[in-house]
Amino acid sequence: MNPMKYGYLGPDGTFTQAALLAWEPAATAEQVACPSVDLALAAVRSGELDAAMVPIENSVEGGVTATLDALSVGEPLQVIGEVLVPITFVLVAPEGVGIDQVRAVGTHPHGWAQVRGWMAANLPDAVYVPTLSTAGAAAELRSAATTSDPPSYDAAVCAPVAAHGLAVLAENIGDRAAAVTRFVLVSRPGLSPAPTGADKTTVVLFQSSDHPGGLLELLEHFAARGINMTRLESRPTGEAMGSYCFSIDFEGHVRDDRVGEALMGLRRVTKDVRFLGSYPRADGKMASVPETAANEAFSDARDWLDRLRG
Amino acid sequence: MNPMKYGYLGPDGTFTQAALLAWEPAATAEQVACPSVDLALAAVRSGELDAAMVPIENSVEGGVTATLDALSVGEPLQVIGEVLVPITFVLVAPEGVGIDQVRAVGTHPHGWAQVRGWMAANLPDAVYVPTLSTAGAAAELRSAATTSDPPSYDAAVCAPVAAHGLAVLAENIGDRAAAVTRFVLVSRPGLSPAPTGADKTTVVLFQSSDHPGGLLELLEHFAARGINMTRLESRPTGEAMGSYCFSIDFEGHVRDDRVGEALMGLRRVTKDVRFLGSYPRADGKMASVPETAANEAFSDARDWLDRLRG
Amino acid sequence: MNPMKYGYLGPDGTFTQAALLAWEPAATAEQVACPSVDLALAAVRSGELDAAMVPIENSVEGGVTATLDALSVGEPLQVIGEVLVPITFVLVAPEGVGIDQVRAVGTHPHGWAQVRGWMAANLPDAVYVPTLSTAGAAAELRSAATTSDPPSYDAAVCAPVAAHGLAVLAENIGDRAAAVTRFVLVSRPGLSPAPTGADKTTVVLFQSSDHPGGLLELLEHFAARGINMTRLESRPTGEAMGSYCFSIDFEGHVRDDRVGEALMGLRRVTKDVRFLGSYPRADGKMASVPETAANEAFSDARDWLDRLRG
Amino acid sequence: MNPMKYGYLGPDGTFTQAALLAWEPAATAEQVACPSVDLALAAVRSGELDAAMVPIENSVEGGVTATLDALSVGEPLQVIGEVLVPITFVLVAPEGVGIDQVRAVGTHPHGWAQVRGWMAANLPDAVYVPTLSTAGAAAELRSAATTSDPPSYDAAVCAPVAAHGLAVLAENIGDRAAAVTRFVLVSRPGLSPAPTGADKTTVVLFQSSDHPGGLLELLEHFAARGINMTRLESRPTGEAMGSYCFSIDFEGHVRDDRVGEALMGLRRVTKDVRFLGSYPRADGKMASVPETAANEAFSDARDWLDRLRG
Repeated sequence: MNPMKYGYLGPDGTFTQAALLAWEPAATAEQVACPSVDLALAAVRSGELDAAMVPIENSVEGGVTATLDALSVGEPLQVIGEVLVPITFVLVAPEGVGIDQVRAVGTHPHGWAQVRGWMAANLPDAVYVPTLSTAGAAAELRSAATTSDPPSYDAAVCAPVAAHGLAVLAENIGDRAAAVTRFVLVSRPGLSPAPTGADKTTVVLFQSSDHPGGLLELLEHFAARGINMTRLESRPTGEAMGSYCFSIDFEGHVRDDRVGEALMGLRRVTKDVRFLGSYPRADGKMASVPETAANEAFSDARDWLDRLRG
Repeated sequence: MNPMKYGYLGPDGTFTQAALLAWEPAATAEQVACPSVDLALAAVRSGELDAAMVPIENSVEGGVTATLDALSVGEPLQVIGEVLVPITFVLVAPEGVGIDQVRAVGTHPHGWAQVRGWMAANLPDAVYVPTLSTAGAAAELRSAATTSDPPSYDAAVCAPVAAHGLAVLAENIGDRAAAVTRFVLVSRPGLSPAPTGADKTTVVLFQSSDHPGGLLELLEHFAARGINMTRLESRPTGEAMGSYCFSIDFEGHVRDDRVGEALMGLRRVTKDVRFLGSYPRADGKMASVPETAANEAFSDARDWLDRLRG
Repeated sequence: MNPMKYGYLGPDGTFTQAALLAWEPAATAEQVACPSVDLALAAVRSGELDAAMVPIENSVEGGVTATLDALSVGEPLQVIGEVLVPITFVLVAPEGVGIDQVRAVGTHPHGWAQVRGWMAANLPDAVYVPTLSTAGAAAELRSAATTSDPPSYDAAVCAPVAAHGLAVLAENIGDRAAAVTRFVLVSRPGLSPAPTGADKTTVVLFQSSDHPGGLLELLEHFAARGINMTRLESRPTGEAMGSYCFSIDFEGHVRDDRVGEALMGLRRVTKDVRFLGSYPRADGKMASVPETAANEAFSDARDWLDRLRG
Repeated sequence: MNPMKYGYLGPDGTFTQAALLAWEPAATAEQVACPSVDLALAAVRSGELDAAMVPIENSVEGGVTATLDALSVGEPLQVIGEVLVPITFVLVAPEGVGIDQVRAVGTHPHGWAQVRGWMAANLPDAVYVPTLSTAGAAAELRSAATTSDPPSYDAAVCAPVAAHGLAVLAENIGDRAAAVTRFVLVSRPGLSPAPTGADKTTVVLFQSSDHPGGLLELLEHFAARGINMTRLESRPTGEAMGSYCFSIDFEGHVRDDRVGEALMGLRRVTKDVRFLGSYPRADGKMASVPETAANEAFSDARDWLDRLRG
């Protein structure tokens, strides 16, 4: 049997790769860097990859809106897992370069945004050079000695996993301790992983018509069943400016009664519900389910209704 | 087999009796006047009566709050039908009494309230004498000739059905044309009549806890399933001032999918749901059901969910 | 100056009279029994009475729906106070009549409903004779000795205040301890009593159009401002069966910011809001106001908005 | 007087620059390319720039989540205008390079995602080379002749404005006709532009506490005032995974009554409302305001309330 083949938003050394490395079942799989979220997901759709790890919230390397949009349209895909990666940055340079010699720093624009405070305090005169990724900034420094075209910066800001072969000039230089980015593992549609009690479900809702209070009516389907949302974003559908769909994560599994009833309700009142999967939460936090929305409450209510109907 | 025995809020000649007379299946039943709504329903509970006709909205004879309260507590009862009675009043007197001889008029206080405009215009000097019922006011006039204790009034305001044996001095003396009162036929719990597409369901909801927005959460269970309410009243539960239950009529039948799901939802989130029956509407008006809440929409959604669950 | 003239739902000795007696400002007023709620309110409208005490929730003597309907239409009226009366019943008879001699008992049907348990246990064979009011039942017994037409019952069930001149055969015979009935004092429109922090406001809302979820939209105006409703009833408007208005009591005073904003909101979205007054609660219970809906929160928000607007 | 200084997400030739070029008042201003959204907004905050044009929805160059996050925290900023730019792509190469000689194509990953269909049909064998921006991809081709370090691709995908100095091999190669990206012009806080009747307002809401239905309660503040939302996104606050704020655009101007009341309501019930400005819509579409939420409805309601309060 061929090994599985997993993609990630590359290059080697990105936070997205760190996410894939943290996903145990991927340990024995071939791991492939992809140049963009879109290309990664296209490769999953075409069967070239079995799954791809992509950022979905708050990513340093970008890709979040690209991920949301790519999941919302085209051939269906399914989220089968999520990974949280603590975002910590290191300042790296080739061996022999001291921090006082750093005149220019390369990194991805989103990465730079997260170390600006440290830079202002420690390297106030350093020039910023944008790069395609944090990992790419480090990679160019590594190959600098062997190329006729060295990068225009002396040091790079990157994830600790991207530091190999370089000297770490400073650690933990992010302005926000405790920053975390969320990634999801996406594959072709299939059975959802079994419920664990600590699950999330992701859907995209397409409204039948746009009117004030329309979103409210959709959200009531969650509230009425005691379902907690954890992410909500309106995204342009691409058909016309002003036409939106809603990308939503919520607590619970498609096999939970409250989730099943909410999904059926949304199915009835929307133009379309795109089910993107139920999967275990990375943080293992059990869903907080009011007693009135527990599976027992649903089966009791069904028994009662059956008796009323005779 | 013994004939059925039906009660009504009496005496003979009330609008409630008119309602029972309009209920075809009661034509072959024995019909019994009851002195109060409470006694009528108590007799149904005890098995003495098979069913009782009682006012539930806007009654001339009173009894509405008594009906709501009696249905809300105690041994369960079930509404199996409703009747609408146009409310028209006549002024009656014993043969030989002319309208210019009328100095005092007897009727139930609620009846008097509805002819006050006519009285002010036509009998401005007439004294009002309250009686236990509109029909009772007429009955006393009928028996006046044969009693040592004649009533203290010369004419009565009552329903046309109560006028027999008396002269009608004026017809249609109600201040509001098109007034209608609604009555329900109540029996012991059993199977609901089959769905007709033009049904109503009556329930009493007991809240788990009283808080701002609590009622709102209950009503969203109807709105989220496209269910139209036709009557809503908060009633004190009797346990303490400030503790309420909600007496509600809505369109649809317990066997309709949208109604079943709404009832299950309410069952989950309330302390108690008292189901008081699904029954055909007296006016035959088909339920207005949005396409998204039709039985087909529910079964499509269930099929879709089953596919998602695999 | 002439004394004030206050009416009440009579006759002398009803629970409604007990409510008026409990209203201190009425102590120096002339007090007049009225034969019905409608006539009492008509007399207030015409100027014949300065105010009238009428039942509004759970009354033993009836009149609740009559009160709601009479307040909803016609010349405006205003509620200026409320009174709670504990409902306790006594069994009374003329001096010399023992409980073992009681063969028939007279009282108002709603009163009978509340002592049925005691009667079944203590006077199982007594016949029930309905009367126009609990007080009237007692009054007829009092006058029995001096009339050629004695009542057809030996004992009466009434309020303790109606027992004078009769022997009390049994006290506290109500099946529910802690029953309480609520009465309101109604006058012609004028300034509301000053806010006390423990106030109620009464309104009637007329919907612009009837549709599913319509009531929900109205109630959100209360919920969005942290306002707790204490009574809600849909009432037919009388124009046609199926056309409803909503009679609502809620916590707070028209001068409270949250109440003012809610009333303006309802005024905007309804066909009509009939304001029936803000008045101190009988139980003195302070309104439970979330911090976010306190007057300070409103004035802070207004200051902030003024700054945004520049 | 010094000219104004406006920044944009660069380099020269991006869609964001096209947006700034379309903003008339910027015609006389100095226009400065910035390497990232974060740096552009930081320069506005520090006073180095007077304003900056940044993407806020559906951008080809990325930056959307960076924009949302940078507006949500730190020193306040204000949106003073929006621009819509139709997204059309051209394929460009140095003079003399024919389409059949194109072996590798450079562009930003989001740009590539939008021409993939065209590429598959017309240049199925072309290798994709990611670049920092679409404009940068073109710029490198322009300087290729004069550098010792030519790019690793033969052609670039970019906006028409970035094509100068290069040959256009193909026009309108985007897979979606009618794609549009939305940009906003951001400055330091000040007065909002005057209302035009066709305005948008942008806010960020920080919830007091996270609970099911919490977002629903916030959205009801819009719905209850007939306000139409046009964009809604939950964004992590960065304090902890699972802590969110909501970035929202809606129709109307802070000086509209309905908007003022909604903002005050949100101010009361949230931990914080960050007001990011009211500004004319780029498409000039008048706000659809229900009659019940028009300024007249608000002033009528206020007059009515003033009369009630006396």
